[in-house]
Amino acid sequence: MKPDIELARETKLQPIARIAADLHIDEENLIPYGKFKAKVDYRVISDEKIKQSSLILVTAITPTKAGIGKTTTSISLAQGLQQLGKKAVLALREPSLGPCFGMKGGATGGGYSQVLPMDEINLHFTGDFHAITSANNMLAALLDNYIYHNRNSDKPQLKQVLWRRVLDVNDRSLRQMVSGLGGSANGIPAETGFDITPASEIMAILCLAKDLEDLENRINNILLGYTTDNEPFFVRDLGVGGAITVLLKDAIHPNLVQTMEGGGAFVHGGPFANIAHGCNSLMATRMAMSTGDFVITEAGFGADLGAEKFFDIKCRVAGLNPKASVLVVTSQALKLHGGVEVADISKPNEEGLKLGLLNVGEHLKNLQQFGQSVVVAFNQYHFDTEEEIAIVRHWCEGHKAAFALNNGFTQGGKGAVELAQTVLDLIEKAPSADVKFAYDLEDSIEDKIRKVVVNVYGGKFISFSPKAALMLKRINRLGFDKLPICIAKTQYSFSDNPAHLGVAQDFEFKIADLIINSGAGFIVAVAGEMMRMPGLPKSPQAERIFLKDGEIEGLS
Amino acid sequence: MKPDIELARETKLQPIARIAADLHIDEENLIPYGKFKAKVDYRVISDEKIKQSSLILVTAITPTKAGIGKTTTSISLAQGLQQLGKKAVLALREPSLGPCFGMKGGATGGGYSQVLPMDEINLHFTGDFHAITSANNMLAALLDNYIYHNRNSDKPQLKQVLWRRVLDVNDRSLRQMVSGLGGSANGIPAETGFDITPASEIMAILCLAKDLEDLENRINNILLGYTTDNEPFFVRDLGVGGAITVLLKDAIHPNLVQTMEGGGAFVHGGPFANIAHGCNSLMATRMAMSTGDFVITEAGFGADLGAEKFFDIKCRVAGLNPKASVLVVTSQALKLHGGVEVADISKPNEEGLKLGLLNVGEHLKNLQQFGQSVVVAFNQYHFDTEEEIAIVRHWCEGHKAAFALNNGFTQGGKGAVELAQTVLDLIEKAPSADVKFAYDLEDSIEDKIRKVVVNVYGGKFISFSPKAALMLKRINRLGFDKLPICIAKTQYSFSDNPAHLGVAQDFEFKIADLIINSGAGFIVAVAGEMMRMPGLPKSPQAERIFLKDGEIEGLS
Repeated sequence: MKPDIELARETKLQPIARIAADLHIDEENLIPYGKFKAKVDYRVISDEKIKQSSLILVTAITPTKAGIGKTTTSISLAQGLQQLGKKAVLALREPSLGPCFGMKGGATGGGYSQVLPMDEINLHFTGDFHAITSANNMLAALLDNYIYHNRNSDKPQLKQVLWRRVLDVNDRSLRQMVSGLGGSANGIPAETGFDITPASEIMAILCLAKDLEDLENRINNILLGYTTDNEPFFVRDLGVGGAITVLLKDAIHPNLVQTMEGGGAFVHGGPFANIAHGCNSLMATRMAMSTGDFVITEAGFGADLGAEKFFDIKCRVAGLNPKASVLVVTSQALKLHGGVEVADISKPNEEGLKLGLLNVGEHLKNLQQFGQSVVVAFNQYHFDTEEEIAIVRHWCEGHKAAFALNNGFTQGGKGAVELAQTVLDLIEKAPSADVKFAYDLEDSIEDKIRKVVVNVYGGKFISFSPKAALMLKRINRLGFDKLPICIAKTQYSFSDNPAHLGVAQDFEFKIADLIINSGAGFIVAVAGEMMRMPGLPKSPQAERIFLKDGEIEGLS
Repeated sequence: MKPDIELARETKLQPIARIAADLHIDEENLIPYGKFKAKVDYRVISDEKIKQSSLILVTAITPTKAGIGKTTTSISLAQGLQQLGKKAVLALREPSLGPCFGMKGGATGGGYSQVLPMDEINLHFTGDFHAITSANNMLAALLDNYIYHNRNSDKPQLKQVLWRRVLDVNDRSLRQMVSGLGGSANGIPAETGFDITPASEIMAILCLAKDLEDLENRINNILLGYTTDNEPFFVRDLGVGGAITVLLKDAIHPNLVQTMEGGGAFVHGGPFANIAHGCNSLMATRMAMSTGDFVITEAGFGADLGAEKFFDIKCRVAGLNPKASVLVVTSQALKLHGGVEVADISKPNEEGLKLGLLNVGEHLKNLQQFGQSVVVAFNQYHFDTEEEIAIVRHWCEGHKAAFALNNGFTQGGKGAVELAQTVLDLIEKAPSADVKFAYDLEDSIEDKIRKVVVNVYGGKFISFSPKAALMLKRINRLGFDKLPICIAKTQYSFSDNPAHLGVAQDFEFKIADLIINSGAGFIVAVAGEMMRMPGLPKSPQAERIFLKDGEIEGLS
C-alpha cells in the first residue's frame, strides 16, 4: 500500500462547510481555518441531543512495540457505521508537533481510515497547542515577574514554584535548567524546566472545561507554588486568570475535520495519558454527540491507563455513559504479550497467541467492571491465519465479549462493516450499564489509589514514598482529598514495571509522588518515572520531511 | 474619546471575502481564518501590477516618551485616500503578544484609524508568530540533538552554538540560562537563552523571502555555530531545512484584514527594528501593491533606524521605489526634542518647538538623500495652537517638504483628507526618485557602516571593539562581506547614546559586535545594548485583561 500521506493526498476533500451542513451546523456557528478545517462554536452543544446519542469508547490492550492502530480502528468504525447508513461522528485528540518530527508517526489514523487534511492536523492545525503554549508560558512569565518585582515588599513571598514552562517540541535539553542568570536585571536564578505542551495542566483544563466560565475558574484554581508561610499560591492570587483565559478563548471551540469518506470528526485537545487523563476534550465529545447519533471516541494507551481515567475522570465530570466499548487487538501484539520474540510475531504461533489473550482477559474484565459491553476488534493482517482468528473469536465467546474483524486500514469503511454491525447489534441488544466508577470521590486518596491498583491493575498493595506521604498530608490539609485521582504509570504493563508484559499480579505498587492539579481537578499519583519532555532519536524524522512541488513529504 | 477596543467593537465588520473581492482577489486564493481574517495565497502577487502601484513609506522622527502614532497615521492616510476615491491598501507589521500583556499598547493603530479585528490581530492572529516560534525552537532541538547523539562520532563537532530559542512573551528570566542539566539523559549542559519571537532570524527571513523556495534557501543558509575546525555550521549541514520550511508553509502567505472604514490591509511579519530590518514582510508589501493603486507601509522607529534599513535592505532586495515618504511629527515630540520637560509638552512653547525641528531636519535631509519626496504629517492635538502649527508649516516650506495636518485619530479618513491630498499632489507633481542607497553592496563592511554613520546618523567616525574587529576578519574570510548591514543601535537618538535627543553630531560610533545573519542576508552591526527579550513591568497589563460577556476588556 502507498504511504498514508499519499493516500491522504489522493482523497478529494469536501469543503468543511459541507461537512458541517451534513451535521446540521449552521455556517454562522462555523469559524473556518482554511477550506477544510473549522472551529464550531461550542454554544451549539445541546444537552437534549447528547441524551439521544450513543457514545462508543475505543480502547486497547497493553501497548507493545508492534503498534495496534487504535485511532485507525476508531476511524474505521465511524466509516463502517456510515456505510450502514448511520450518522456517526468521531471525537479524537489532536496530535502533538514534537513526536511528528521525532519518531515517525502522526496521530490521524492510517491507510484508508484517516482524518483529513492529515498534514495540517499534524502540523499547526487551528493553533490550539500554540495557544496553550502561549497561555502556559505567559503565566510563567507573570509569576516570575511577580516574584521579581515584589521580592522586597510585604506581598506574599514564594518559597517554592511548581509551575513549569512548555513547548510543543521534543527537546531533552530543556528538561532541567537554571534560569534567571546574568545579574539582577534578568530576574532571580531558579531551577526550572520545560515540558512538552500536552503535559501542561492548561491542556488538561482545556480538555475538561464545560464552557469559558468553567475554563476561567479552573485556571484561577491552578496551584502555582507555596508561600513562605506554607500557604498555597494560586493563579487567582496572582490576579491574571482573566488574561490567561483570553489567550484560550478561541482554542476552547472544538475543531471539525473530515474522514477519508467524508464523515465529520471533532479533533480537539491532547493531554498526556499518563500525567493527565489523556482523552480529547469534553467539548469535542459533547459536540460530536450533539451532531451525531453514534459517536466514537478513544482513550490513550491501554484500557488500564486510558479507559480507567476516561471513566473515573472524564465520564464522571460530564455525566457520560458509553453504550459500548471496543477493545482493539492484533495478532502481533497478542504474541508479544504471549512471550514471542519480536522477530517472530508475523509467523503463526497459536500457543503464543493464546498466552497473549491473558492480557486481553484482564482488560476485558476491567471494562466489564466499569459496566461496559465490549466488542473485541481484531485488526486483521494478511499473515493472520484462519486458525488464529478462530482462537480469538472462540475465546471472546467464552468471555461474554462480541468479536469482529476489522479491515478498515486496507479497505476503509467497507472493511469495517462487520465491526460496525457488531457494535450496533451490541448497543441494540445489550448496551453497557451506566458507568460504575472504580472509586467514590468521598473515598480517601489512599483508598482511591488502592481500589484502582487492586481492582483494575491487579496489584496487591500500595506503598508511599516519604515524599508522597508528606504530600498526602498536605493534600488532606488543603482539602483536595475529594478530587479524583490520575495515576501516572508506565503504559507498557499493568504494574509499575514496564518490562512486565502480559498480566502482572499481586505486585506492590509504589507511589513516588502526589501532585496537586487543582485547576484540572485531580491529584496525580506518580508511580515510577514520568516523561514530561521527550527527546529526539539519533535520526529524527525531521531529516526526511520537506516540501516537494508544494506538497509535504515525510509526514505519516 | 472611548478606548480603542470599544471603538473597534462598535465598528461593523465586512466579511473578509467581501474585502478580498474589492481587491479583486478570488475566493479560491483566500484562506479564511475565522470570518474577518484570511491569508491570501502569495501566488496572486503580480509583478505587472506592482509596477503600476505607488508605494508610500510612513516613517517618523526620533521616538520619544510622547508616542507619535505612526501606525495610526498610516491607517489614517489609507482611509483618507479612500475618501478621495483612491484604491489604497495598507501593508503593516503584525504585533507581538509579549508587549500586549506587558505595557499597554497594541500595534493596530488607534481612535478612528485602526485595523480590525484589533483583538484578534493583537492576540494569536493567524498563528504566524507561533509558527515562527515553533520553527525556531524545532531547529534548536534538532541542533542540540545532533550535538548530543554525535558527540563521540566522526561527524563535525560544534565548539560554539549561536542559535538561541524564542518565545512570544516578555520574560526576563529566560534571557540567560544553563540548559541540559540533570545528567547525560538530559543532553549536554550549555549556556543559552530565549529571545522574543520578533527577534528570531526566522522572522527576518520570513519577512524577506520572495517565495517558498527562497524561504528554504535562506533557512538553509542560517549560521548555527562553528565547528572545532573553526568552520561555519549551517542549517544545510544539519539537513533539516526542508522540515523547518514545512513549519512555515502557511505563515508565508500574507494576512488580509480591514481598516475601520472597510479598506484592505495586509498585516504580516514583525521583525525587530534594531536587530533586524523592522518592516512588515515583503510578501505583504508586494501583495498590497498587486491589489492597490496606492500602498502605505511603514518602517520601525525613527527614519534613521527604520527607513534606512527599509531602503538599504528591503527596497534593495525587492527592487522597490517608494513614490513618497511621510514623516510623522507631533508637537509634544518636537518639544521633547527641543529640551522641554515632559510635564510641559502639552503647553504652548514655540521656542521648544523650533528647537525640536532640528530633529525633523535631520530625518528630512536623510529621506531626501535617499531620493524621497517628503510630506511632514503633523498629528494634531486639541492643545496645539495655530501659531505652533504655522511654525512647522512655514519650516517645511523652507525645507522642500510638503506639510499636512492629520486628524485621523479623532475623525478617521475624513480627518486625513488633507494629508491624503497632499501625498497625491506630491506623487503627481514631484514623486521620489529611484532609491539612492546609502552604500553599495560592493563596499567593505567598514565602509558600509561608515557611510551610514556619517551620512545618515551625522557621526564623525566609527570604532570597532576587539570582538567586532575579530568578527570582521571572520566575515571577510567566510565571504559574507558583500551582504548589506543592519545597524542595531538605540532608537532614541541618532547616536549610540539614548540620552542624546534632538540632533547628535560629530560623535564617535562604537561597534561592539558584528553578527552574521546569513539566512536573513545581512550583517548586524551592534552599537550598545540590544534588548532581545523584554521584561514585564511591575503592574503588567495582563492584570487588566479579561473576558466580559464574551468580549475582551483591557486590550488597546
